[in-house]
Amino acid sequence: MTFEEARAQFPVFERLAYLNAGTNGPLARPTVEAMVTQEQADLERGRGGPEYFEHVGELRSEVRTKLAALVGVALDRLALATSTTNGCNIVLTGLDLGPEDEIVTTDGEHFGLLGALAVSPARVRFAPVRELAPDEALEVLLREVTPQTRLLALSDVCWMSGNRFPAAELKEATGLPVLVDGAQSAGAIPVDASELDFYAFSCQKWLCGPDAMGGLAVVDPERLRIAAPSYLSQESYEPSGEFTPRPGAGRFDPGWTSPPSLAGLSAALDLAPEGRFERAGAMAARCRELLAGRFEMVTAPDQGTLVTFRVEGDSAELVKSLYEQGVVVRDIPGLGWIRVSCGWWTSEEDLGRLDAALG
Amino acid sequence: MTFEEARAQFPVFERLAYLNAGTNGPLARPTVEAMVTQEQADLERGRGGPEYFEHVGELRSEVRTKLAALVGVALDRLALATSTTNGCNIVLTGLDLGPEDEIVTTDGEHFGLLGALAVSPARVRFAPVRELAPDEALEVLLREVTPQTRLLALSDVCWMSGNRFPAAELKEATGLPVLVDGAQSAGAIPVDASELDFYAFSCQKWLCGPDAMGGLAVVDPERLRIAAPSYLSQESYEPSGEFTPRPGAGRFDPGWTSPPSLAGLSAALDLAPEGRFERAGAMAARCRELLAGRFEMVTAPDQGTLVTFRVEGDSAELVKSLYEQGVVVRDIPGLGWIRVSCGWWTSEEDLGRLDAALG
Repeated sequence: MTFEEARAQFPVFERLAYLNAGTNGPLARPTVEAMVTQEQADLERGRGGPEYFEHVGELRSEVRTKLAALVGVALDRLALATSTTNGCNIVLTGLDLGPEDEIVTTDGEHFGLLGALAVSPARVRFAPVRELAPDEALEVLLREVTPQTRLLALSDVCWMSGNRFPAAELKEATGLPVLVDGAQSAGAIPVDASELDFYAFSCQKWLCGPDAMGGLAVVDPERLRIAAPSYLSQESYEPSGEFTPRPGAGRFDPGWTSPPSLAGLSAALDLAPEGRFERAGAMAARCRELLAGRFEMVTAPDQGTLVTFRVEGDSAELVKSLYEQGVVVRDIPGLGWIRVSCGWWTSEEDLGRLDAALG
Repeated sequence: MTFEEARAQFPVFERLAYLNAGTNGPLARPTVEAMVTQEQADLERGRGGPEYFEHVGELRSEVRTKLAALVGVALDRLALATSTTNGCNIVLTGLDLGPEDEIVTTDGEHFGLLGALAVSPARVRFAPVRELAPDEALEVLLREVTPQTRLLALSDVCWMSGNRFPAAELKEATGLPVLVDGAQSAGAIPVDASELDFYAFSCQKWLCGPDAMGGLAVVDPERLRIAAPSYLSQESYEPSGEFTPRPGAGRFDPGWTSPPSLAGLSAALDLAPEGRFERAGAMAARCRELLAGRFEMVTAPDQGTLVTFRVEGDSAELVKSLYEQGVVVRDIPGLGWIRVSCGWWTSEEDLGRLDAALG
């Protein structure tokens, strides 16, 4: 399948220059067809009986297998979280950090991670790296590491600047556990979470899946407490509620996932053509090239698939005006930045529409 | 709309005597139609832009309004949880109980509550009420209350026996905070959560909603810590992550809910005909009457809409044999009990099929 054929499965592109996968990705026809097929089955056959539960178990396993492969971990190291936020909360509530402990993070994190850090009793130290060149970030981050540091918590790709943060390098330099917010990397760039401790991601963004699905890779499930157990967390339990956790990271599954959504995600995960990461990177580079002559670029070359630039005046108003011209992007509130999300599906024409709409 | 007309909206009844709403309720055509309509819109228009987010905000508010009314609380006292389990975890992780504190519960709780209690550092005291007559339970529960009790945590309707537990009476007698597991009561019997502290429930059971949706009524949101914040928890936040919580219980919303599921649930909540609780109670009574001559009944008269009875031999095998005859019920593992879920939608014919299939 060529990129053009694969792109043709997303009807939204017939209508819009949809450049906001960093919020919600485009949906493809096979994804919605798979959802509707499951919904019709549930409508007609009911959501009960052995065949139903066996089928849902297979769907869970199918999706878990595909997501684990995507982020480079074994099947039993992947929990079916509901979002990146949910993944971050599973980790922070399970680590049981105390007021003497410290967490090192950046000043470029999304509230999905930031909120979980804020309610932790640990002290949070912020490395001011958001506006630095990517190759300067590691040193600044290392300055915040102390003997009290118990966790490194940062994004793989910054949701604001679009720049990469050196999560793996920071872990390598310190040997400390790391929680990576992969919201802007899973499905956008190649990911290897096998050397990270915790990698939380969303499925509705770069993976073009249904809403409210995510994943959490946990390299050593035995070392994280289950702070919010679900029925799926246990293999067996006593009348006292004491339970034997399920083997592997499935113990952190926060609950039942909608089977139509599982079916849709499974279909979505099969859609991406070969060479997608190279193609997405090339489209991001092309986007940057188009804009760099006219705007101050925030995103450095060769980062992820977000391209952020600074505008004069009200960025929210500009986003609105672009939307009225059929171009969907977002701004970063308070910074006057506009963020463009490029994927393997992005066409030269989409970028041309953006360029023209910017006046 | 008559009960017959309302029942005709559920295709599963054309095929099965579907008597398992205590696990997953039947789905109606308008519910799935609303889901599919939203999915088609998201497919064609994308999940971005101001109209999309405005529409989803309205859907959230619509569903919250209907759920709040259903359980008798104000709109701003209702969080859109993902399940009863999720609601129980929100409460237990937010209460910050310590090892000196005690929780009083029963020996008839589902793992959705039991798991949350088991991972709490508090000591859990179990009142052995599962096999008692409903009017004997209060006294036995009160015996477990001590000066260290910080929380009462129990079901409204026991998922195993089908009997009601005296949650409101226990709170009234002790004045202590109560967390009620409403999985088997919301939508099945009239609920007034306005005098309870926390009432957690599911939407896919007696409310016939899509999967993975629930609610949590919190009478005093200011007194519960947000242990797992989502973007929806905050009204504004500082660079440090410190945030001003959203007013009301919406601060406990665990994250983005699938808009197709919201649309489906909103449609489902409009389907129940007037007099549904009386009708559901009458069908449960009729079911009990049919079975009481032949089986030892576990459920007392005039409880909720679950009817549980004891069988000789392997209850799992019997459930399987009933399923092969088109009758969907479940057993309670380890107890040799069969549980029948009756709703306002249950017909005399469904019960006749059950009766005949029992041989």
